[in-house]
Amino acid sequence: MTNVKAWAAGAAGQPLAPITIARREPGPRDVAIEIIFCGICHSDVHQARDEWSGALFPMVPGHEIVGRVTRVGRAVTGYAVGDLVGVGCMVDSCRACAPCNEHLEQFCEKGPAFTYNSTEMDRKTPTFGGYSTDVVVDERFVLRIPAGLDPAAAAPLLCAGITTYSPLRQFGCKPGDRVGVVGLGGLGHMAVKLAASMGASVTVLSTSAAKEADARRLGAADFVVTKGGDLDRLAHKLDLLIDTVSAPHDYGTYLGLLRPRGAMVLVGAPPGAASLEPFSLIMNGARLAGSLIGGIAETQEMLDHCGKHGIVSDIELIPVSRVNEAYDRMVKGDVRYRFVIDIASLRGGVA
Amino acid sequence: MTNVKAWAAGAAGQPLAPITIARREPGPRDVAIEIIFCGICHSDVHQARDEWSGALFPMVPGHEIVGRVTRVGRAVTGYAVGDLVGVGCMVDSCRACAPCNEHLEQFCEKGPAFTYNSTEMDRKTPTFGGYSTDVVVDERFVLRIPAGLDPAAAAPLLCAGITTYSPLRQFGCKPGDRVGVVGLGGLGHMAVKLAASMGASVTVLSTSAAKEADARRLGAADFVVTKGGDLDRLAHKLDLLIDTVSAPHDYGTYLGLLRPRGAMVLVGAPPGAASLEPFSLIMNGARLAGSLIGGIAETQEMLDHCGKHGIVSDIELIPVSRVNEAYDRMVKGDVRYRFVIDIASLRGGVA
Repeated sequence: MTNVKAWAAGAAGQPLAPITIARREPGPRDVAIEIIFCGICHSDVHQARDEWSGALFPMVPGHEIVGRVTRVGRAVTGYAVGDLVGVGCMVDSCRACAPCNEHLEQFCEKGPAFTYNSTEMDRKTPTFGGYSTDVVVDERFVLRIPAGLDPAAAAPLLCAGITTYSPLRQFGCKPGDRVGVVGLGGLGHMAVKLAASMGASVTVLSTSAAKEADARRLGAADFVVTKGGDLDRLAHKLDLLIDTVSAPHDYGTYLGLLRPRGAMVLVGAPPGAASLEPFSLIMNGARLAGSLIGGIAETQEMLDHCGKHGIVSDIELIPVSRVNEAYDRMVKGDVRYRFVIDIASLRGGVA
Repeated sequence: MTNVKAWAAGAAGQPLAPITIARREPGPRDVAIEIIFCGICHSDVHQARDEWSGALFPMVPGHEIVGRVTRVGRAVTGYAVGDLVGVGCMVDSCRACAPCNEHLEQFCEKGPAFTYNSTEMDRKTPTFGGYSTDVVVDERFVLRIPAGLDPAAAAPLLCAGITTYSPLRQFGCKPGDRVGVVGLGGLGHMAVKLAASMGASVTVLSTSAAKEADARRLGAADFVVTKGGDLDRLAHKLDLLIDTVSAPHDYGTYLGLLRPRGAMVLVGAPPGAASLEPFSLIMNGARLAGSLIGGIAETQEMLDHCGKHGIVSDIELIPVSRVNEAYDRMVKGDVRYRFVIDIASLRGGVA
């Protein structure tokens, strides 16, 4: 075991603070990674504050990890020392169940080993995330970061990227499609870039008229204010809607914007129950779907797609010492569009 | 115009009674049909009682029509006098919009001309349904009834059949799939027969343990009582769920039975709003869809499929004089599984 520096929440809602954690020695299939950057995801805040309950403390958040390989186990075939790699939301799964065999490790029947606030598949060893200097991961859960992408801005692809890429692919987004993106935050801004890169004509639906310029800069062809705006002109016009909003809202309003048999995919989930009129699905043959990150193979596909199209996240790079401030600003929506921690600030001992 | 005998509701909730209605002279593309049988759909009751509001009276219900061609217009190419044909829920659409061009006439942007309680595309001439001796329909909305099917028992295929066939096809039902059918009524019993005919292993989910024997006779391989029963054993086991229940119920319970990215399709819609936990969709990558009958081409495909597999509805044949009693019994669920009116009883003057 190797002790490494990290930042952790000691208990629900406590400010994050420095901690030392142990990382295992690399086994035969393991890759040891020196972390360079780690994105801050909304789910980091939810979990550090135990808003989804069941949180494990101390908690080292972070599942948008970019780093460089420092050691590989003797049986590793896919990676070599010096490679630029990523780690996303999962570090293992049972590898034997039907979903695992279908490259849907996120739905592993035993439950995947999530990158933090979870346990390894022994269901005992806690997992710690990317707000740390180093991590050791089985090569099957390591991703390759394409050359040419800014490594800091690529970090959010590991969660925000795959979360929005997967539903676009699941529902066959193609050139000429009209795709609506509800909400322009960390997830929404990635959805705009990715849908546009697939040739879709993107419409951003936002409560805030002030976001129009940004939406268009990110690749949107159209913009609609959802409250008191001109939503009606989109009625039955959209092939696909990606809903990134995690505050409670009415789905019926948006379902009516879909063409027959179109899909609206929820990737930002309000806690609790929403109200839904079954007729709003039936009369349009519509589908209301949920989507949860993506499998490992699809995550690599997304990274390769981003490499080809030069897509990264819009980020604000911060030292780890500002992580608590970043949490507060994220909750207020005050970031365009993703905080990324410069892990050099942690390694250097500044923290 | 030709005057023909029919039965109609004179106003919301009034018992149906004899009436005389006019049918147009067949135009160049029209097919004149002597109606032999007409199924009674739950939506007949809802509409005759104006439970969906906006009903047009007098109303001659009936959109599960089987009859024989008596005359054809000079430009008709698909049908000849003597052919056994069907008419379903629609008798026309705009034929020009995107959905019409995609064979989804039920989603016609101008609104299709429904077979009754609607208007022709002139938006003035009322349409009257199949509780009548004759009907005149453009050949593009006439279906062919395959030889070998009992014409009376084939009538419900025109609505109950296509309503359950379409979602099975939309979501790729194939041999080996596990399909759940929620509710064993007019729609549910067709869903069981059709899914089984596609090679699926069917599980019926019902509130009533008394329906198990029937479910198995219809083709189900498995049966689960939904209340206080053993639903848990189906967790994440089903590829597809067809929900035919039109009373309010909790969707989350059923969504948890789906395999990752499985779909639950609503074809029976409770009025008003249902409660839905977005997490129940996201954590399983599930899809909650609605489906509305099917297009004309798909309806013909369904009839041909039923002809090939010898599938018809289980029916109780009644004279038109018993239609009001049939309505009351349907509301109580007292029919296995579809009433069909013998239109000879109307033509003969008995009514």
